[in-house]
Amino acid sequence: MSDKPQILLTPGPLTTSERTRAAMLRDWGSRDPAFINLTRRVRERIAAIAGGAETHACVLLQGSGTFGLEAAAATFIPPDGHVLIPANGAYCHRMGTIAETLGRRVTVYETPENVPPDPAELGRLLDADVTITHVAMVHCETTSGILNPLAEIAETVQKAGRSLIVDAMSSFGGIPVDVNATPVDVLIASSNKCLEGVPGIAFVVARHEILAASAGNAPSVVLDLHAQAAGFEKSGEWRFTPPTHVVAALDAALEQLDEEGGVAGRHARYRENCDVLVDGMTALGFRTYLSHNL
Amino acid sequence: MSDKPQILLTPGPLTTSERTRAAMLRDWGSRDPAFINLTRRVRERIAAIAGGAETHACVLLQGSGTFGLEAAAATFIPPDGHVLIPANGAYCHRMGTIAETLGRRVTVYETPENVPPDPAELGRLLDADVTITHVAMVHCETTSGILNPLAEIAETVQKAGRSLIVDAMSSFGGIPVDVNATPVDVLIASSNKCLEGVPGIAFVVARHEILAASAGNAPSVVLDLHAQAAGFEKSGEWRFTPPTHVVAALDAALEQLDEEGGVAGRHARYRENCDVLVDGMTALGFRTYLSHNL
Repeated sequence: MSDKPQILLTPGPLTTSERTRAAMLRDWGSRDPAFINLTRRVRERIAAIAGGAETHACVLLQGSGTFGLEAAAATFIPPDGHVLIPANGAYCHRMGTIAETLGRRVTVYETPENVPPDPAELGRLLDADVTITHVAMVHCETTSGILNPLAEIAETVQKAGRSLIVDAMSSFGGIPVDVNATPVDVLIASSNKCLEGVPGIAFVVARHEILAASAGNAPSVVLDLHAQAAGFEKSGEWRFTPPTHVVAALDAALEQLDEEGGVAGRHARYRENCDVLVDGMTALGFRTYLSHNL
Repeated sequence: MSDKPQILLTPGPLTTSERTRAAMLRDWGSRDPAFINLTRRVRERIAAIAGGAETHACVLLQGSGTFGLEAAAATFIPPDGHVLIPANGAYCHRMGTIAETLGRRVTVYETPENVPPDPAELGRLLDADVTITHVAMVHCETTSGILNPLAEIAETVQKAGRSLIVDAMSSFGGIPVDVNATPVDVLIASSNKCLEGVPGIAFVVARHEILAASAGNAPSVVLDLHAQAAGFEKSGEWRFTPPTHVVAALDAALEQLDEEGGVAGRHARYRENCDVLVDGMTALGFRTYLSHNL
């Protein structure tokens, strides 16, 4: 089965290293001290990558990235909350569907798929509707690959005194983010994109005060990140059976990210790959759909 | 890391075979035909093991077994439903908590942890309250290891014209179950117990008519098994990124279950292990907590 290396060209799951996959060759007791240590290390590393080691907690969650998104919406947008979503692709709209299904009020600010939201317009929308409590945005929208203006939006949201939730699924680990320099309350990503782990875990990096204030919001047991975080804090254990092998693979993948020079090093490699691809295809006569991103 | 074999003595995750873990050594494109085939094979095998190949669909779900339980409660108990839970352990009570958190009406019929529910009493409770629409029971309750009387309860529930949901987490694959001979509408289990796969997937085996009638019940996007099943039916693909390596390991584990003589063969081995353990500990002076189960 593993004779022929599988080169995946999709946005994720993506190709993992042999070392990452080999980390899945042992079993772990999910309540054993060794696995508790592994879990703690992974949580600390992710919070640190996000620049939130002192201010944010990393809450791991079983499932795909979308499970993390729904859990974040359920836990951090209270039942009487109102979320504004700048939308220029499928994943932005999916976030709206999730929040609506949870019974949260949603307003969408739509732009074409190759146009980033205008932070000034977003600011006007926030000024015009005081009922809006949250802004939820996608950092890098997989639909087109567009990179949305996180820093400007974060500044706008902070000035307007609202809370910012960022879907960083396709950027986290590949594009530098600092949840304090660029104020982000809640950031969601998963094991199997730029961190280059195998799929099966989502995680949410959430500001301590926001997490502390979120008890009782979630209309769900398994997707309640407040309870999930409390479980990690109390015993270091996962509340429900973790995908132990996937966690071990993520730990190995994070080690390799470190060795590559962290996010800056990985970003340089991705940037070069992108340049090679765009230059080569441009020479073949293709044009890029997104202009502002290069 | 994998030099020293890990022998896990917990009820799950449990020790997996080298062959099962080795199946995780390749990457899979989650939308590639090869992975779609793998997914189809796993779904068909599980439905067949449950005796529901013709009558039930197997819906795979990312996450731990508890994710499957919440998804089943959310999808199959409608908002105005009322579920009766015979309870003699922590997992029975957890099912009640889940249903209540989802806003479903719950009635608990409690017995001590070493006493199975009385099917006649359950029948009386169903007769006495016509608002009860569902019975949700745990087959083998991990708290004590007690095996609850599935066949008798299934018959009682069928006679009373209600719908039966069975948490078979700790029994499925190790104790024969036939969802038609013993009428079960919805059965929930996971990859990492008696099927001896690695953790990361739950699954729900649901009667086709029940599944078809469940649209719109779930107050969740990711836990909506009607939508999840529709995704599998439409394209063979998972709606959201699957834990590809875990699915591949489950496929390998199911192959090994076949080779062991299916559930009957595995049951014989577990039975023998149980006898050796109980006989040996009895000789040492220990007594079993459960008497009726031996």
